[in-house]
Amino acid sequence: MKETENKGRAFTTLSELLERASALQTALTLFEWDNETLAPREASSLTARTQGALSAAYQEIMTGEEVGNCLKACEEENLSEKEQAIVREAKKERDELCAIPPQEYRAYQELIARSALVWAEAKKKQDFDAFAPILKQVIDCQKRFASYRAKKGQKLYDVMLDDYEKGFDMEKLDEFFSLLKRELVPFLHNIQKSGIEIEDAFLTGDYPEDKQREAAILLAGYVGFDFSKGVLAVSEHPFTTNLHNRDVRITTNFKERVDSSLFSVIHESGHAIYELGIADDLTQTLVGQGASMGMHESQSRFFENILGRRESFWVPVYEKLQEIFPCELGKIALPQFVRAVNKVSAGLIRTEADELTYGLHVLVRYELEKELIEQDLPVEKLPALWADKYEEYLGIRPQNVSEGVLQDIHWAQGSFGYFPSYALGSAFGAQILFAMEKEMDIDRLLAEGRICEIREYLREHIHRYGKLKSARVLLKEITGEDFNPGYYVSYLKEKYGKIYGIQS
Amino acid sequence: MKETENKGRAFTTLSELLERASALQTALTLFEWDNETLAPREASSLTARTQGALSAAYQEIMTGEEVGNCLKACEEENLSEKEQAIVREAKKERDELCAIPPQEYRAYQELIARSALVWAEAKKKQDFDAFAPILKQVIDCQKRFASYRAKKGQKLYDVMLDDYEKGFDMEKLDEFFSLLKRELVPFLHNIQKSGIEIEDAFLTGDYPEDKQREAAILLAGYVGFDFSKGVLAVSEHPFTTNLHNRDVRITTNFKERVDSSLFSVIHESGHAIYELGIADDLTQTLVGQGASMGMHESQSRFFENILGRRESFWVPVYEKLQEIFPCELGKIALPQFVRAVNKVSAGLIRTEADELTYGLHVLVRYELEKELIEQDLPVEKLPALWADKYEEYLGIRPQNVSEGVLQDIHWAQGSFGYFPSYALGSAFGAQILFAMEKEMDIDRLLAEGRICEIREYLREHIHRYGKLKSARVLLKEITGEDFNPGYYVSYLKEKYGKIYGIQS
Repeated sequence: MKETENKGRAFTTLSELLERASALQTALTLFEWDNETLAPREASSLTARTQGALSAAYQEIMTGEEVGNCLKACEEENLSEKEQAIVREAKKERDELCAIPPQEYRAYQELIARSALVWAEAKKKQDFDAFAPILKQVIDCQKRFASYRAKKGQKLYDVMLDDYEKGFDMEKLDEFFSLLKRELVPFLHNIQKSGIEIEDAFLTGDYPEDKQREAAILLAGYVGFDFSKGVLAVSEHPFTTNLHNRDVRITTNFKERVDSSLFSVIHESGHAIYELGIADDLTQTLVGQGASMGMHESQSRFFENILGRRESFWVPVYEKLQEIFPCELGKIALPQFVRAVNKVSAGLIRTEADELTYGLHVLVRYELEKELIEQDLPVEKLPALWADKYEEYLGIRPQNVSEGVLQDIHWAQGSFGYFPSYALGSAFGAQILFAMEKEMDIDRLLAEGRICEIREYLREHIHRYGKLKSARVLLKEITGEDFNPGYYVSYLKEKYGKIYGIQS
Repeated sequence: MKETENKGRAFTTLSELLERASALQTALTLFEWDNETLAPREASSLTARTQGALSAAYQEIMTGEEVGNCLKACEEENLSEKEQAIVREAKKERDELCAIPPQEYRAYQELIARSALVWAEAKKKQDFDAFAPILKQVIDCQKRFASYRAKKGQKLYDVMLDDYEKGFDMEKLDEFFSLLKRELVPFLHNIQKSGIEIEDAFLTGDYPEDKQREAAILLAGYVGFDFSKGVLAVSEHPFTTNLHNRDVRITTNFKERVDSSLFSVIHESGHAIYELGIADDLTQTLVGQGASMGMHESQSRFFENILGRRESFWVPVYEKLQEIFPCELGKIALPQFVRAVNKVSAGLIRTEADELTYGLHVLVRYELEKELIEQDLPVEKLPALWADKYEEYLGIRPQNVSEGVLQDIHWAQGSFGYFPSYALGSAFGAQILFAMEKEMDIDRLLAEGRICEIREYLREHIHRYGKLKSARVLLKEITGEDFNPGYYVSYLKEKYGKIYGIQS
């Protein structure tokens, strides 16, 4: 009797502690959102103090004795699958926070704050040398932190990769990226030699902001972003964030190229649909977010590319888009529009890359990160190596570091191991697509305005589980096999082979 | 030596604890702002859990042993004036929180949440009986809570009044409100009998929302709202909030009557200017807000009424307003515009009241609150008593409870003792005005576009002090005397006597 009473008690106490920690995280999320979308210019330094205090409170709970004792006691308890997952995530978070001495962590946070500023300035001035010394410090810190957390014999870059994509280490990623290099680099060269030039000039021009906003609302609603549980705002860089599964927020911005905002809003809606689909009993817990960075990215890219760049996707909605932009698109037939938004054009900037070349941008970063972390590549060598790799894989060479090695903020923020997830997301999506096509006719569903059935499949098989299942487990359950990047390559070669008339 | 080392230590520890408490409060403020301005419809129930957890964390700190010990130890320390004020506010907050048993407080919070919903529904259905039972419960709770906190012999309503306006008890307020009744009720009747009808039809009509927004930005900027430290958004009811003195936010909304949004934005800007003017070393501490509800309201009403409804105020800016509304105001000369926005028109709704009758709306509420709390007035009698008092003081009688006793949310939220501060604010403002006029020519400064000098005076004498000085101390320092409502009555009778040709 006594034992039964004790059973579940540690987990209950743990849940209460985690609820408070989660509330602090949610507050931090709201501050981030607010900073990016609304907060006045002068607010940041004082608001940062508030954020710092909330963050410290969060860390105190997670690294505190109480959580530690509860986690230990939970080992003796008979827990449900969900409870076990929560304990697992709590342990992971705690271990990460505990591994780094508080003073070092604080110093690191200051370093990162400075580093982001130095990076922004260096990018503006096209001056890599101004950024190199602090980048070196960031890398050294990241390596030291990884060494604190490494299991016996574990490589440092593998520690970092595992943070973003559990179960994907260098061995697995080498395989993945070497496949991309082997297959897609020559394939791209063939496209570039094909002589086919797709006309897409009409995508640039006089697309007024208020009309782009109207189109953004149209498309977000069309793919299933629920405005009664979500917000669409404007920020410098588009992103998605969420407080819980009934408050998911996306941002967009409006550029000269209309397809940039159109597909960006579909992309962020894909992220949002994931978060909106997480089961009610998981939201506001440690397993109430997407399974992994890569799985999240798979969903945003599924909507943006796999669905969004098909002709059938636009059948129910293209006329409405034409009504919004009568002068610009009124005379552009749907096939011409779809052809234009699938134009392959090797560029220098990752965030503007097309579906085919995107993975090659990530390949460059993966290879360089690996060298930086595992082979002590001197940071001074980055600009030249970066340019060489772009020339080799994409056939173009940056003219300055701002459109080269300084284009992304990730390294300045200490995010090493993050980039591969972007490419993995595309590959997960393609693998999932092949499985789905056995069960449903995607083009028919889309053309008939039944995109909700596709969304429902994804919710049913992926979204609702949150972090209960890892990306690899989800893939296995949906497709019957472990991660297999072959589907991704097949998908790309088939699709773009058709567009550019290239035999595979 | 040892003793010197110890000195200051308790206050330092206290400051750290209060910094975390303040961060939690700031987070709660941001959630409130977000809920009122942006959050999606379905978010509230889950977000409320987050808010509940943050609020609990705040209360734990403030009622905890650590803060208690620090406060006690601070008594032995040699503290600066500012430190003493912080200790005083911390004690006050702690005593208030500790006085009420946690279970009772939680039950009360649930009651209040329900009560607000019942009120909204009852107001919609014009059904006071639906609201009466829960109102009774709220009053009982409020009285019980006040009894826990009452000093020996202190009346319950005095406890409540003190929360909003320290140093203003029934004795003082009876004096104040009886003066208003004695002087303003007959004065209003004279105006109503004067036969003068001011033309203000042009203020109603086709004032498009985007133009009203433009005007709001113009006026906020004109009075000194600093958009680099502030945000203007839209919400159902206008309000001001702040995270600290570099992030102060106001809202407005756009109605059919353009003067409603014009003066509302000046009003909220007045609140904001107060918060923006608080000294840097006070913001983010417990004394980093306005001195009191009434003093805050004095500043908003100073800008809205005392400055905003003068002709000289509009001299530098009226042409710009005409440019925004060329069809509506292009042919309305400034004197005609100013006359219209000073029209006296006894109405039923407090928030729409003109400057002269506003105090009489509050008088009704003060008298009823006093009876509810001190004489056990049965809530069932409220609708009839309310109507009788409106008829007696303002000469009009509500036709239903929605435009009568159910118009304000305050009682449903348990805010008894709050209303008087609104009227006190106007009276403080008038008293301050008389003192200022000895030092400066307000009309000349305004007409010459030197409103910043008026704002600077207020910042120098009021805003920067935050809560370091109470409203009564500030009044004494500025005007050389204690609160004196005579100035308010003189101000109103002189101003409106002139407009309506009535001898005082």
